[in-house]
Amino acid sequence: MCVLGLGLIGGSLMRAAAAAGREVFGYNRSIEAVTAAKFDGFDATANLDDALSRAAEANALIVLAVPMPALPQMLDHIRSTAPQCPLTDVTSVKGAVLEEVGNFGLLQNFVGGHPMAGTAHSGWSAGDAALFTGAAWVVSVDDHVDARIWSQVAQLALDCHAVVVPARSDEHDAAAATISHLPHLFAETLALIAGEVPLAFALAAGSFRDGTRVAATAPHLVRAMCEANAEQLLPALEHGIELLTRAKESLADTGSVADLVEAGHAARMRYDSFSRPEIITTVVGTDNWRAELAAAGRAGGVIRSALPVLGSQG
Amino acid sequence: MCVLGLGLIGGSLMRAAAAAGREVFGYNRSIEAVTAAKFDGFDATANLDDALSRAAEANALIVLAVPMPALPQMLDHIRSTAPQCPLTDVTSVKGAVLEEVGNFGLLQNFVGGHPMAGTAHSGWSAGDAALFTGAAWVVSVDDHVDARIWSQVAQLALDCHAVVVPARSDEHDAAAATISHLPHLFAETLALIAGEVPLAFALAAGSFRDGTRVAATAPHLVRAMCEANAEQLLPALEHGIELLTRAKESLADTGSVADLVEAGHAARMRYDSFSRPEIITTVVGTDNWRAELAAAGRAGGVIRSALPVLGSQG
Repeated sequence: MCVLGLGLIGGSLMRAAAAAGREVFGYNRSIEAVTAAKFDGFDATANLDDALSRAAEANALIVLAVPMPALPQMLDHIRSTAPQCPLTDVTSVKGAVLEEVGNFGLLQNFVGGHPMAGTAHSGWSAGDAALFTGAAWVVSVDDHVDARIWSQVAQLALDCHAVVVPARSDEHDAAAATISHLPHLFAETLALIAGEVPLAFALAAGSFRDGTRVAATAPHLVRAMCEANAEQLLPALEHGIELLTRAKESLADTGSVADLVEAGHAARMRYDSFSRPEIITTVVGTDNWRAELAAAGRAGGVIRSALPVLGSQG
Repeated sequence: MCVLGLGLIGGSLMRAAAAAGREVFGYNRSIEAVTAAKFDGFDATANLDDALSRAAEANALIVLAVPMPALPQMLDHIRSTAPQCPLTDVTSVKGAVLEEVGNFGLLQNFVGGHPMAGTAHSGWSAGDAALFTGAAWVVSVDDHVDARIWSQVAQLALDCHAVVVPARSDEHDAAAATISHLPHLFAETLALIAGEVPLAFALAAGSFRDGTRVAATAPHLVRAMCEANAEQLLPALEHGIELLTRAKESLADTGSVADLVEAGHAARMRYDSFSRPEIITTVVGTDNWRAELAAAGRAGGVIRSALPVLGSQG
């Protein structure tokens, strides 16, 4: 397999795949990261065409692990040099990537992915072979995806000791807006408001630290994910503003915030008891397999070991 | 000293004060808590008049550790039985308590307090002598407070291994609205929104867990603190809604959330590097001592060992 981009995620993926016994080589734009990866014993180059020619020869799985803005340039090179290779990505927004891949005519061999893992650090040196252990790794079941490539991508996630959550790209993005992008904007807002009140930082304790922890993330990373998912984030943000406005009016008019507090608490309790059944019965490639997996993923289902693929020898 | 209410905070206070070698007795309405406290070797009664008569005889410091709704009844008994005793409280909202104490004519001997500590549990059995270790304990420096009683209350906090943050009640409440009450409402909102989106709980990770952790708090406790501080919470909530609305408009119109994200990140960085200088130079009871301590507390200052009191022998 061929990893394009050796930052935190790409670099961790290279380490995890190698640890699982896979043959893996990678490309990174900066010589520094390539040198560091080589020093650590990995097969890396700063020459994109070399990496892609090699991928084409081996029909290697190519993993896009570059930031969104670098995507068109990568896809353009892949179209010229390795258009037949199976292709996946590890980007936090799935709809926008799907669209770009389609723009370059590469949809047929593409199955989007998103490992739900990260740290506050970045770059090759921050990478860790164990980064994905136990994490949810979304593997997309959009209408176009090919069963065999889907299985290859799911196997990569399992090799990295993640659990696979099958999901459609649009549903992934709607979920990510509420569990990641909106929490980031709320955290920024809380930090900003407290910062304007004398004494607030002097008294800040657990609820402030928890509620603003992700505001410590580098602004360009927060912007990149929120802005690339604007279509799904906007209705979530609007909904949040509505709920807070209703709570404000209730507090002003009746002195009560009962509605919001009780509903929020009930939702959080449902989350704490959310079960994660293992998906074992689906055969990848049979009629309706994508919709079946999407429904199972939506219900909390996860794949912990490879599913059978129609027409393959077990 | 006499602790009225032996729940999580009152019960922890009784244990911490006893561990510091202080003579302490307490009252609780429920026989169960009194029995449990006695079983654990503490001096407790379910007879309020007995406890207050004893406090009056010994001129003991009385600590109000009951929930807000029980406060008027306690103050009424104190007015009849122990009106001369020094009086403090451990309630999370200071302005509303100050007003109630004033209503019963007990302001003269009252110095409000608020240890910034807690757990998700409640009741005598949840108490812990170490609950206040290292925590900030606000001791109010409102215009009316008496220097000697202030020092008694500060000494109690220090005996419990807390650090004292001197603050005015109104400033405490404005800060608490932004660092505690607003974060609770934001957490409830995030939990509620994610709970409505299929797949969200299936993908939820760190930013969701951090951002909604306090939504697991019992709704009646969240309501009690938010609703008692409505006056300060409303403008903070309004400000939050404004900032989020501005971010929404910016995202819709220009595709950018830069303003909010950069300002929020900068504020969170200021919090991380916020310093806590020790307050050592103020002599309690000298001209302007209350304003001097309020300014020091606002700047992050904390008291780690007893300050000298004017006219006392060191």
